[in-house]
Amino acid sequence: MFSSILIANRGEIALRVARTCRELGIRTVVAHSTADRDSAAVAFADEAIQIGPAPAKASYLSIPAVIEAALATGVEAIHPGYGFLSEDRYFAEVCETAGLTFIGPPADVIGRLGDKAQARTIMAQHGLPVLPGSPETVDSAAEAKALADEIGYPVIIKAAAGGGGRGMGIARHGGDFLRVYGETRAHAQATFGDGRVYIERFCETARHVEIQVLCDQYGNAVHLGERDCSVQRRHQKLLEESPAPGLPPELTARMGEAAVRGALATGYVGAGTFEFIVDQDGAFHFMEINCRLQVEHPVTEMVTGIDLVREQIAIAAGRPMRLRQEDVTRTGASVECRINTEDPTRNFAPTPGTLTEFVVPGGPFTRVDTHGRPGWKVGPDYDSLLAKVIVWAPDREQALARMDRALSEMRVEGARVRTNGAFLREVIAHPLFKDGKHTTSLVDQMLSEAVPVKDRPNDRT
Amino acid sequence: MFSSILIANRGEIALRVARTCRELGIRTVVAHSTADRDSAAVAFADEAIQIGPAPAKASYLSIPAVIEAALATGVEAIHPGYGFLSEDRYFAEVCETAGLTFIGPPADVIGRLGDKAQARTIMAQHGLPVLPGSPETVDSAAEAKALADEIGYPVIIKAAAGGGGRGMGIARHGGDFLRVYGETRAHAQATFGDGRVYIERFCETARHVEIQVLCDQYGNAVHLGERDCSVQRRHQKLLEESPAPGLPPELTARMGEAAVRGALATGYVGAGTFEFIVDQDGAFHFMEINCRLQVEHPVTEMVTGIDLVREQIAIAAGRPMRLRQEDVTRTGASVECRINTEDPTRNFAPTPGTLTEFVVPGGPFTRVDTHGRPGWKVGPDYDSLLAKVIVWAPDREQALARMDRALSEMRVEGARVRTNGAFLREVIAHPLFKDGKHTTSLVDQMLSEAVPVKDRPNDRT
Repeated sequence: MFSSILIANRGEIALRVARTCRELGIRTVVAHSTADRDSAAVAFADEAIQIGPAPAKASYLSIPAVIEAALATGVEAIHPGYGFLSEDRYFAEVCETAGLTFIGPPADVIGRLGDKAQARTIMAQHGLPVLPGSPETVDSAAEAKALADEIGYPVIIKAAAGGGGRGMGIARHGGDFLRVYGETRAHAQATFGDGRVYIERFCETARHVEIQVLCDQYGNAVHLGERDCSVQRRHQKLLEESPAPGLPPELTARMGEAAVRGALATGYVGAGTFEFIVDQDGAFHFMEINCRLQVEHPVTEMVTGIDLVREQIAIAAGRPMRLRQEDVTRTGASVECRINTEDPTRNFAPTPGTLTEFVVPGGPFTRVDTHGRPGWKVGPDYDSLLAKVIVWAPDREQALARMDRALSEMRVEGARVRTNGAFLREVIAHPLFKDGKHTTSLVDQMLSEAVPVKDRPNDRT
Repeated sequence: MFSSILIANRGEIALRVARTCRELGIRTVVAHSTADRDSAAVAFADEAIQIGPAPAKASYLSIPAVIEAALATGVEAIHPGYGFLSEDRYFAEVCETAGLTFIGPPADVIGRLGDKAQARTIMAQHGLPVLPGSPETVDSAAEAKALADEIGYPVIIKAAAGGGGRGMGIARHGGDFLRVYGETRAHAQATFGDGRVYIERFCETARHVEIQVLCDQYGNAVHLGERDCSVQRRHQKLLEESPAPGLPPELTARMGEAAVRGALATGYVGAGTFEFIVDQDGAFHFMEINCRLQVEHPVTEMVTGIDLVREQIAIAAGRPMRLRQEDVTRTGASVECRINTEDPTRNFAPTPGTLTEFVVPGGPFTRVDTHGRPGWKVGPDYDSLLAKVIVWAPDREQALARMDRALSEMRVEGARVRTNGAFLREVIAHPLFKDGKHTTSLVDQMLSEAVPVKDRPNDRT
């Protein structure tokens, strides 16, 4: 086992990874930007090292800065968290060259699966169902348009280098296509430095369901069941749960088998997520693979009892996985809500500011992963995720009641700070969601419904 | 189901009960003393009503004040929490007379089992093993001494009206007996208004193991397994866990059966706890029954997934219990630590004061039940329990590592405020405890060991 790990991330995930490291007796070093020097993860860690100023490219995205920090502090391995360098094949390669263990899949696997068009092709070759679409990336607008006409509208245009809900555009009809195609390419080029895109049929009334897999270095692979992440706004997940409500266990079992098959076929190692779309006919289609820990991993932990970070570290340390598929039992239901510092009444605009009050829920089967603290300055430099509230209960109905209770006791105060807490409570109370009959369109639907999101004068959650 | 419940308690348990009420859609009214007007439970509840000044006998122990509050707020039921009026048969009777549901066993059951000498006799009659001792209370010193000589020393002298570790004295040899007997009687008379005592053989090297039972109004009873509460200081529990380490499952299963038998025989209704001593030979002996929720109930919740307060409320509302013994499955291991505001370096003297900083642990499988908040004034009027940190893990070793991690991130600051957090970490690290080979003498042993409890200059936990 490693004796020390560098955590190359920030916010709640840096703290969450550090917690498991401490439980394993591993010395933790948190690499942090100047803006994060007073963060909860830095306070918790055994050691901290400053790697540059706030803009991520000068710190959390800087491969030289992170590697230098790892070498300077003498760690054996690097945990990248999610986002930032977690799915950067070059970073994984440089780690290897520097004699550091990258806690994640091998660089070449990240390379193959990180290209979403390529991942889609590979998975189709191994028998995973994919939506009708371009066999590979399409480089000419005319060729793309002809293909879209053939697939039938709406279509979704996706950046090969995208992922995590970024770099996508939907063309609802032929007249729309060339504009969206152009915009998506330009956005992809600007954001990822790679303008290549591919095309798929777009499912309007679909569910986003993903499978968590764990694979060791010796060809052992298991899946830990599904997470339903259909509650999204602009392709960003807001609420996740396990099991997926209303889906037949036989369907999710087949998805799990497909994910394990796909993982084994590509030599996957570590924790990974296979994202699928389940269409209105109950058919599932492979979308992409996330070669890292997900923000929503806690719901899987709650229903399986398995600490995913612990498994990641053990796998990276070369331990054979003792867990077999038949050992994975899932109990009850778990739901996660992402508490973002944003204002639902102003189109979810981020609301940076200093927290004057910060009270998190507690009590039975209630978990909070957060870096928030009274006095913590939510800066403009990073995403707006402040806390994850996760609950468990014997069934979904109780879990939703528990989540509503938990959200009701959360207090986030600060001069201009707002959160989406009240909006999340409206999601939970929505009849379609309560019945598990919602789709990925739920949030858009809610926002366009006659009754607007309540502009409560003193919205405290 | 009830539409409203009055919570006649304070601190963490008032908040904990209110949480479950809210999850059930029940309106909560917290009855509180003037000292608790700014408490977390009051802030959380739907309604709050002041019932008197801080001394408990003028508020939390005042039957008229509590009943008046219940009638004034129009609630249907009263949850007494633990301590205060929770095991007061007269209170339960007055509730009934006033048309209020007392969430606990019937008054006559509390009456019979609240007398510890009588409870012992009843249980012995129903075949539960008890330690050699006086068949009933002993009222003459000479008679008591003769009996003690016959039982053999050490003996423990217990107040019939005692319980929860209060009202007990140990006579280690014959020369000691009359002094301890007199002191215990005087203490019992002063504390409980009832000087009657009984005598039992005292097990020096024993484990304190208790069984949680649930019984509905229709003769259905189950047990939820055991809790080991052997880590005690002056008969006050400091750390509790489930399962009991090192005890054969066959033994705890027999204890569970015995508890269910005893509960059924006495017409028990609600959640209750059968306390046993397990001696060095692995034999178990009935000690007493607690007719209420225990402070340490969360460890049972963590391993069973059952919300005990939810069950209490459903049972009190007259619902038949659907849970059958074969449905009760226990998974993994759970540990609870009681964080008290007291100074281990000054003989655990209480340290009242205002909290300037209060940060609780979070993350995987970590639960905190607390009424603490930055700015909360820990007053001198109540016991020193500030927070319960509860963890779960697949096995005990991981649970202890998790607890140590959780305690390591707890911050309780205030001018003169100290906690027993660091001492609890020493307990967890103690070889006897780690190996599950400790007895109820562990804490005394630690305190008398050569290396004193560390007087850390800036002890922050």
